[in-house]
Amino acid sequence: MRIAELSRRSGTSIPTIKYYLREGLLPPGTSTGRNQAEYDERHLGRLRLIRALREVGGLSVAATRQVLATLDEPVRSTHELMGHAHQAVIRPLTGSRSSDTDDPAWRSARQEAGRWITSLGWRVHPDNPALDRLADVLLALHRVERTDLIAGLPQYAATALTLAEQEVPTARDAGDPAAVMAAVVTGTVLGEALLTTLRLLAHEHVSATLAGYTPAQGPGCEPPAGDPGEGTPPRR
Amino acid sequence: MRIAELSRRSGTSIPTIKYYLREGLLPPGTSTGRNQAEYDERHLGRLRLIRALREVGGLSVAATRQVLATLDEPVRSTHELMGHAHQAVIRPLTGSRSSDTDDPAWRSARQEAGRWITSLGWRVHPDNPALDRLADVLLALHRVERTDLIAGLPQYAATALTLAEQEVPTARDAGDPAAVMAAVVTGTVLGEALLTTLRLLAHEHVSATLAGYTPAQGPGCEPPAGDPGEGTPPRR
Repeated sequence: MRIAELSRRSGTSIPTIKYYLREGLLPPGTSTGRNQAEYDERHLGRLRLIRALREVGGLSVAATRQVLATLDEPVRSTHELMGHAHQAVIRPLTGSRSSDTDDPAWRSARQEAGRWITSLGWRVHPDNPALDRLADVLLALHRVERTDLIAGLPQYAATALTLAEQEVPTARDAGDPAAVMAAVVTGTVLGEALLTTLRLLAHEHVSATLAGYTPAQGPGCEPPAGDPGEGTPPRR
Repeated sequence: MRIAELSRRSGTSIPTIKYYLREGLLPPGTSTGRNQAEYDERHLGRLRLIRALREVGGLSVAATRQVLATLDEPVRSTHELMGHAHQAVIRPLTGSRSSDTDDPAWRSARQEAGRWITSLGWRVHPDNPALDRLADVLLALHRVERTDLIAGLPQYAATALTLAEQEVPTARDAGDPAAVMAAVVTGTVLGEALLTTLRLLAHEHVSATLAGYTPAQGPGCEPPAGDPGEGTPPRR
């Protein structure tokens, strides 16, 4: 296909495609004349992956190039491939805060995190940055005396596992390596956004239910009589 | 209690307590002499709430004062009280990105979000900012062609509801209004951090399991034979 069709089908503008070609993020097409080249499905797949990494994962061009380079290395296992894609987006997701690794309280929380994951029987590499993040969270929970949430960790873990058991096979089955990577990136980042947003909405719903509100009329359902918002139509 | 004990029990330094007193975040103690005052359990509860709002919720002093003011208003329902606490932390959580509300594609996604929540029978006020965030996520999923994740929304919603049904009653039962607010703030923010971190760890575990790794030895469990990291001890 020509660059115009590649642009249309990938949802990426022609100047951006040319920029990716110059930067080496996209391999050149097959030359078919002066200033003309043909592109194929692999270019399309690569562009979709770049879009997932850049727009969804928030990766820089340099970081994107680094992730793409792993696709051009000798064939690896799908597990390793997924690990690279996961690694690319896990640091932005777990936040920029640097754990105070010299603080004895943090080191203790880090050991607690390790013990928890061990007790769950999870196969997690000790370099996974989410383990440090888990230590940050445990330390914060101790500091604000929410030990009840720490005690509730097995339930959160069971919930997380149920989600992962659905999400990971979907990504594995996405197709060629570029498609698997794109699925890991979009599924990890957007799946998290979906889950956390729905949790916030569920909080309001459960609180309203416990407060004895009348049956739901959906969003736009107004507070009960006496509340200032009564009777006003949904604001969209 | 004297300010020294208040400092020790609340984990807040004396200069910070004096700053909160000057800024009106904390009501004055009972004067017991020149430059001496007695504080009680309400001061302690208020300080714990301020800490939750400032350190966990990331609120400014001005925003914290605004939230605290709702505690001094005439008695409201627990639902309304929880709504105020939730509102205080929901904007930082749902991100600073402003939705492009003029974009017809966004407006369509916003309607889709409303329809989804209606179809779930959830009682959610149309002003809940998480509805706009849900529209952002749905739009992003459409753009990267992850309609499979949109189809999986009921499962994410069921998961979110199960969590909320555990989390909301815990916050309601926390005690006095200040304690309820503190529980909503810490539970909303830290519960999300706990859930999303465990989900990332579960991803690695499920991927390793599908790749046929040998039974877990916990974090520190090394990749299988042939991988560069083989045999090295866990790095802590």
